[in-house]
Amino acid sequence: MTESWLRTPEWSWNRMSSGCEFVHQWVKPLKEGVSHPDVIIYGAPISRSSISVSGASLYPDEFRKMWKKFATYNLEEDVDLSTLKVIDAGDVVMHTTDILLSHQHIEEATSFLVGEYPGSTTCMIGGDHSVTACAVRGIKKEFPNERIGILQLDTHLDVRDPKELGPANGTPIRQLIDGDVVQGKHVVNIGLHGYYNGKSLIDYAKEKEIQMVPLKKARKQGIIETAQSSLQYLAENVDRIYVTVDMDVLDISAAPGVPASTTGGLMPNELFEVLLEIGKHPLVKHIDFVCLDPSRDSLVEETVKIGVHAWLQFMTGRTFRG
Amino acid sequence: MTESWLRTPEWSWNRMSSGCEFVHQWVKPLKEGVSHPDVIIYGAPISRSSISVSGASLYPDEFRKMWKKFATYNLEEDVDLSTLKVIDAGDVVMHTTDILLSHQHIEEATSFLVGEYPGSTTCMIGGDHSVTACAVRGIKKEFPNERIGILQLDTHLDVRDPKELGPANGTPIRQLIDGDVVQGKHVVNIGLHGYYNGKSLIDYAKEKEIQMVPLKKARKQGIIETAQSSLQYLAENVDRIYVTVDMDVLDISAAPGVPASTTGGLMPNELFEVLLEIGKHPLVKHIDFVCLDPSRDSLVEETVKIGVHAWLQFMTGRTFRG
Amino acid sequence: MTESWLRTPEWSWNRMSSGCEFVHQWVKPLKEGVSHPDVIIYGAPISRSSISVSGASLYPDEFRKMWKKFATYNLEEDVDLSTLKVIDAGDVVMHTTDILLSHQHIEEATSFLVGEYPGSTTCMIGGDHSVTACAVRGIKKEFPNERIGILQLDTHLDVRDPKELGPANGTPIRQLIDGDVVQGKHVVNIGLHGYYNGKSLIDYAKEKEIQMVPLKKARKQGIIETAQSSLQYLAENVDRIYVTVDMDVLDISAAPGVPASTTGGLMPNELFEVLLEIGKHPLVKHIDFVCLDPSRDSLVEETVKIGVHAWLQFMTGRTFRG
Amino acid sequence: MTESWLRTPEWSWNRMSSGCEFVHQWVKPLKEGVSHPDVIIYGAPISRSSISVSGASLYPDEFRKMWKKFATYNLEEDVDLSTLKVIDAGDVVMHTTDILLSHQHIEEATSFLVGEYPGSTTCMIGGDHSVTACAVRGIKKEFPNERIGILQLDTHLDVRDPKELGPANGTPIRQLIDGDVVQGKHVVNIGLHGYYNGKSLIDYAKEKEIQMVPLKKARKQGIIETAQSSLQYLAENVDRIYVTVDMDVLDISAAPGVPASTTGGLMPNELFEVLLEIGKHPLVKHIDFVCLDPSRDSLVEETVKIGVHAWLQFMTGRTFRG
Amino acid sequence: MTESWLRTPEWSWNRMSSGCEFVHQWVKPLKEGVSHPDVIIYGAPISRSSISVSGASLYPDEFRKMWKKFATYNLEEDVDLSTLKVIDAGDVVMHTTDILLSHQHIEEATSFLVGEYPGSTTCMIGGDHSVTACAVRGIKKEFPNERIGILQLDTHLDVRDPKELGPANGTPIRQLIDGDVVQGKHVVNIGLHGYYNGKSLIDYAKEKEIQMVPLKKARKQGIIETAQSSLQYLAENVDRIYVTVDMDVLDISAAPGVPASTTGGLMPNELFEVLLEIGKHPLVKHIDFVCLDPSRDSLVEETVKIGVHAWLQFMTGRTFRG
Amino acid sequence: MTESWLRTPEWSWNRMSSGCEFVHQWVKPLKEGVSHPDVIIYGAPISRSSISVSGASLYPDEFRKMWKKFATYNLEEDVDLSTLKVIDAGDVVMHTTDILLSHQHIEEATSFLVGEYPGSTTCMIGGDHSVTACAVRGIKKEFPNERIGILQLDTHLDVRDPKELGPANGTPIRQLIDGDVVQGKHVVNIGLHGYYNGKSLIDYAKEKEIQMVPLKKARKQGIIETAQSSLQYLAENVDRIYVTVDMDVLDISAAPGVPASTTGGLMPNELFEVLLEIGKHPLVKHIDFVCLDPSRDSLVEETVKIGVHAWLQFMTGRTFRG
Repeated sequence: MTESWLRTPEWSWNRMSSGCEFVHQWVKPLKEGVSHPDVIIYGAPISRSSISVSGASLYPDEFRKMWKKFATYNLEEDVDLSTLKVIDAGDVVMHTTDILLSHQHIEEATSFLVGEYPGSTTCMIGGDHSVTACAVRGIKKEFPNERIGILQLDTHLDVRDPKELGPANGTPIRQLIDGDVVQGKHVVNIGLHGYYNGKSLIDYAKEKEIQMVPLKKARKQGIIETAQSSLQYLAENVDRIYVTVDMDVLDISAAPGVPASTTGGLMPNELFEVLLEIGKHPLVKHIDFVCLDPSRDSLVEETVKIGVHAWLQFMTGRTFRG
Repeated sequence: MTESWLRTPEWSWNRMSSGCEFVHQWVKPLKEGVSHPDVIIYGAPISRSSISVSGASLYPDEFRKMWKKFATYNLEEDVDLSTLKVIDAGDVVMHTTDILLSHQHIEEATSFLVGEYPGSTTCMIGGDHSVTACAVRGIKKEFPNERIGILQLDTHLDVRDPKELGPANGTPIRQLIDGDVVQGKHVVNIGLHGYYNGKSLIDYAKEKEIQMVPLKKARKQGIIETAQSSLQYLAENVDRIYVTVDMDVLDISAAPGVPASTTGGLMPNELFEVLLEIGKHPLVKHIDFVCLDPSRDSLVEETVKIGVHAWLQFMTGRTFRG
Repeated sequence: MTESWLRTPEWSWNRMSSGCEFVHQWVKPLKEGVSHPDVIIYGAPISRSSISVSGASLYPDEFRKMWKKFATYNLEEDVDLSTLKVIDAGDVVMHTTDILLSHQHIEEATSFLVGEYPGSTTCMIGGDHSVTACAVRGIKKEFPNERIGILQLDTHLDVRDPKELGPANGTPIRQLIDGDVVQGKHVVNIGLHGYYNGKSLIDYAKEKEIQMVPLKKARKQGIIETAQSSLQYLAENVDRIYVTVDMDVLDISAAPGVPASTTGGLMPNELFEVLLEIGKHPLVKHIDFVCLDPSRDSLVEETVKIGVHAWLQFMTGRTFRG
Repeated sequence: MTESWLRTPEWSWNRMSSGCEFVHQWVKPLKEGVSHPDVIIYGAPISRSSISVSGASLYPDEFRKMWKKFATYNLEEDVDLSTLKVIDAGDVVMHTTDILLSHQHIEEATSFLVGEYPGSTTCMIGGDHSVTACAVRGIKKEFPNERIGILQLDTHLDVRDPKELGPANGTPIRQLIDGDVVQGKHVVNIGLHGYYNGKSLIDYAKEKEIQMVPLKKARKQGIIETAQSSLQYLAENVDRIYVTVDMDVLDISAAPGVPASTTGGLMPNELFEVLLEIGKHPLVKHIDFVCLDPSRDSLVEETVKIGVHAWLQFMTGRTFRG
Repeated sequence: MTESWLRTPEWSWNRMSSGCEFVHQWVKPLKEGVSHPDVIIYGAPISRSSISVSGASLYPDEFRKMWKKFATYNLEEDVDLSTLKVIDAGDVVMHTTDILLSHQHIEEATSFLVGEYPGSTTCMIGGDHSVTACAVRGIKKEFPNERIGILQLDTHLDVRDPKELGPANGTPIRQLIDGDVVQGKHVVNIGLHGYYNGKSLIDYAKEKEIQMVPLKKARKQGIIETAQSSLQYLAENVDRIYVTVDMDVLDISAAPGVPASTTGGLMPNELFEVLLEIGKHPLVKHIDFVCLDPSRDSLVEETVKIGVHAWLQFMTGRTFRG
Repeated sequence: MTESWLRTPEWSWNRMSSGCEFVHQWVKPLKEGVSHPDVIIYGAPISRSSISVSGASLYPDEFRKMWKKFATYNLEEDVDLSTLKVIDAGDVVMHTTDILLSHQHIEEATSFLVGEYPGSTTCMIGGDHSVTACAVRGIKKEFPNERIGILQLDTHLDVRDPKELGPANGTPIRQLIDGDVVQGKHVVNIGLHGYYNGKSLIDYAKEKEIQMVPLKKARKQGIIETAQSSLQYLAENVDRIYVTVDMDVLDISAAPGVPASTTGGLMPNELFEVLLEIGKHPLVKHIDFVCLDPSRDSLVEETVKIGVHAWLQFMTGRTFRG
């Protein structure tokens, strides 16, 4: 800029300052060639596979735009996140109307990333919950001999029948179990509560030995303790843990931007505590955050802010690994 | 429908599916002639008797429309609600401008239902809080020799003077006490807090020995324990318990659809726990839910959802009776 | 209902009253077997084929629910709509994730209806704009030797390339032209304005001889006169006219529930005038209304109300045919 | 105030400044004893007589609070309103639950004011439309030998049957006609349009010779000309004219704070033009503004602003009288 | 990007595509060194000088972000805007609390730009209306011997006394007149209406011979004709014309994002027509758009969209100059 | 008022009733000359010193308007607040554009009040957080030999550099420390959490020995205990305690009207408990509440309600002092 009273406009804000105090200054694009990243982020912007209307496809962009409002320093844990190397691999390319092709892209992109960066933790930003089945299949393809366990934070079981609905967002866990990618007993669901799963789905879950930890029970034994014991159970039975966070696990009063959220759900602070524990566990190699629809968020974008905060809690935990 | 790609439109949705997994499939209209129902629902859609502007008259309809989003299975208690027989007796007919006549209809409809189905638990869906006085009078007419106790969940005492206001929504408890239908000492109010009752009303309550359990005290001794000891106190002193839930007992941050809600109120999960206990108690034969104004609710209708969830918690408790 | 102070609940409201003064009392379900209906309504509830996030799939239901707020008497024209026989054939069955299958259902359902009721005018309620291509193909299948003209009220040309996007909502007119179902010169678009079509799309339209009538020109020569001359042009060149109303033709200030609406668009009264003229024309045998997303509407549902009013204007015009 | 950096708080804002440039500085309370006022304002804050939920009872207060945002100078007409003497007589006292008593108060207060200040023009601020019947009866009581004509700006006829609904807001015109207070042929309704009056109501209006001027016709002959010819018609047939403005005559896109407004209605500028003409006419001795519900208004309170602007247009016209 | 199913994230969207069909692809940053630009854009993001709370400082960024939704082709005029060379000089640097310094920056930046690019048309994007006084002074400094005329589109005169308020947004025109930068008779204000300017301000305007064209008069003689005759009047009396568009000239129903907008204002289409004329006039060398507060806009951002559309209308007119 | 059915309008509501049950009846204007008040309220309505857009300048008025919805009786503590004498000194006079002058007014007004009423507790209602530095300097001027301690409830440290930003709302604590008015070790901040302070600010705080009590730690040791031990720490080290409550310490889900609130913050009930303890402590002689922007509040004004409730909790504690 030639004159000092003029400043380059917003469109290049994220490279504007030279510091590293804020998240948007810390995360680097994949093309900058950071070697051995600790964490890789990528977006899966699809929600036309959602049973009900959803704009979760808009979340990856809104997630990134919100970064500049967050510092990289966690005051409560006295931890500086910027000691971790994080790259953003961008978004998986989606087709406008061919859902199967889009799903295949997610699967292939995930395979590529976990193959190319086997030492990195992947964070996929959805998109509706259908993307989880794609990502897990992509990982399985790269590591066919490993048992994959799933820690699911969700109000719903997501075991509706893909034969009826296709690969929609109500079906990912069933796709993986019926497709022999993951065993039912290697799925732990924390966050179930209330009256939000029909009896036939509960029957399926019981039959497949999905480990259901209703929220009332989790609260009685302690939310953190529940996370820890669930991780330990999985660690004893599988080779790698995939964590999927359906943001509808949050209580409806706290998360207007998650259309499927219900009353009686997890409070944000509970979610933050759980993610800190999850971040610490060495077997957790993959995490996704799904079903957050920014187009339904409040004017102050509180749900997107919870989304970024939640991810940073996972990152804080991640710094505690050896 | 003649062709398979065409489906009957929405207007008959509630009979569309043959299953019984969702609440709208479970509850039967009175005219279907279910015998010996466990529970009877009826609406009292009036709110022009409210001191401040209220659309609580719209709640009975919105309450029913929301049923299809709730399953009949309670995952946290592992209970199947559909073991209970529930009928919907419809709405009490209201006059457009004659408030006294409308109130009389509520009284008569209640008398009819409790007389016709003495073994059933009644759930009245308001309407503003004026309807409670009508219903209790209707019950008293059928059971003149029984002492009726009231368990009130409310931010307010509702003992303003009907001589000044007429039978408005700020007066029901005083109507019943001054009218010798219920004794002051047989009224327990849980949920009072903050700065929302003037000194003269508190003086009246003390004089009439209304049992006031402010929220701070209830939280100190445990919300569930407070519910249990309140029920026990009433059980030792009355013949039947009428529970009235003024939804303004909820904290304003959780319940935008209750215009009179305040800060410092009950959180939804606290209400849910209390209602589970209330549902279990054999002497609780009547319950109402009042003052929820759907026209003020948020776009995601969170308050109506809390309303249905709250009622289902009562129903879950109800399944635990012998 | 056994007692007079109780009324059957809302879920059967549409059969509650015996009169015929309101729209929900006037329109009959297909299964009631009305013979020789003047008009047939059917819904095409799909919007996962939309390029941007859309809840237009919710419109058919909201359209019907709004009927009870509209009388069948048009005071301005002194016309009683109830002289027309109208049936509602319900909604085309959609698959949750298979967009191509859903589109095929729309095509087949349309073929069935226009074949079974050749003398009736069809009104399809979308859905996003992709449904128009399906419907026109369905009609063409039944009347392969007829030239079909399209009168399009739209802010956009909708001639993006289906080779790139698949059968998405930006492509229907191009699908029909490139697929030799309709000739470019038999498409008249009224409502184009401003800066909402890229140059390459305008080049395509010019090449294919699409008749573009920008809004400024239409207003200069009179909106009604524009409608009349457009209809006359088509009448002289085709055998039947299909009208497609993309609700995004409306000005953004009037239609919050149409996500793609823009500033500078048609005002509701202008749309109403045009539809009255269209309704009168004997060659107009099909009409659709698309892209209205009720989930984005204002609290007073003004866009859905405009949608019903617009359809009734067409119906008023329809009564003027011989 | 003792120190110059401290200012008396808001609660006395309306007496804060000594000027007379704004409306709140211009209008004087009745108790200040202004003699021979040109115009008298009074509020009728009732809306529990409304068929549907309404907060129109809140309008008189919001109307007054908005005054400070309006200057007393009309730039377009180059007129200084402060040449008129205006007093505010306050609000009619309402009972909380006794609608008939409240209505009687309106009637008596109106009688008192028109009797005490026969040379003044009265402006009543409602309230729902039921208040008009009360006010006209109150005037008739003072001037029993005068024929009263009504100029009604309204989307609805308001001739529903008081035998069925009581004195609700859908009935005032019929109350007056059936009660022989006003003759049907002395009622002119401008603003009727669309599909918002059932056939039976239109039949009643025709039978009673209510002069219906649908909006389409009014626009064709000119809105101002319609107002003028309607006033002239009344002036030739009655002794005094009462104007009632149901704010639901406004188009829904412009007036979110009028729950019953519809699409196709009067645009604010059209209303403003009409009111200027009405204000000029010497036989117009009374006007009311009803059915504006501030609790439904937009955040920028645009409907209340339209309400004040509309009243000021009437006042501008009033300055043109000799 | 290494793999084809991954796409660079949003943060560099504006360079993502290679075409030039959309506005964000057309406008070039100043640093790219475009020579002899036809038009220069720069932002003046300040609104703490506003009398009432305003977030107009956020507009320059939101203005630019909206560009990607607008094509460069004007369909109504059949004009391709991309024939013009446009550069974006970025935002003037503002101090957080020193308003005078910020204002000085605007003045200096404007001087720099008009001095460096004397043949270019400047478009300043505010900010509140205080920025206009700064810009005009900056121009005057570069061209001290030229008479500057102002064409103001505004609901207000903006001649409040800077002696009392400092250089606030209610004072710019008076600053310029009292400061002998511009003569009162060289200011033409179109858009004044209603009751939004106190008598003392009107007296000042009359005394200084400000040319006031109230909206009613403008509409009577034709909005376009009014614009043309105003431009002609100025062209006959000054050397260069500065146009300032206070977006509060828009009607409140169309522009929720302008806190000071009022009822009775300019409709967007009227503004668009006027700006087309203004763009054509060779003496118009500067334009600004002020007082649009994106933080108050509706969810669909209709006011920002109007803002971009309005600017493009000016640009369309600009293409018609020789 | 001459006739009994007419009531004086709203503009004098606060003197309407003779009782003392509500807050607006209890607080007296300074000019009424109450001697030896226990508590003095004054407003500091400025927010143009805020870094981001803020309407906190509107809070003092909205705070007072809300009083009439609060009773003076605290039911949970069984305490009658009206035993305290409270005066409202009005608002500090602000200049429209001269921020430094406005700040100086706050300083002088505070000096005047604490000098004139040395035995009273002062409550300043902001305004943005810049006002705290002014008030503390004003107190220091009157009591130059006393050490002032600050108990800060805040999500942020507010130690950004005034050399860069001027006396903006991000700088007050640093102004006071760098200005030698308060020592860093005499500042205790409760409420810090998450990722909302950059590392360089935390480094400054550590260097200056600001006592940081992150929320997680506070919750672990008990919120009340944290308040008590913080007050005790200050009591042992300073002569008087100034409490500053930045309302952005509240969780974003509870406080929509605080633009800078974040997720993970204090819940209202936690704040209420803390303020009760603070009110009790004899060394707390000053308190302020800042950064609440009523123009961003929800329709039910829940944040303003929390603001009044919070202040009343402090007042309740105040009654417990000897």
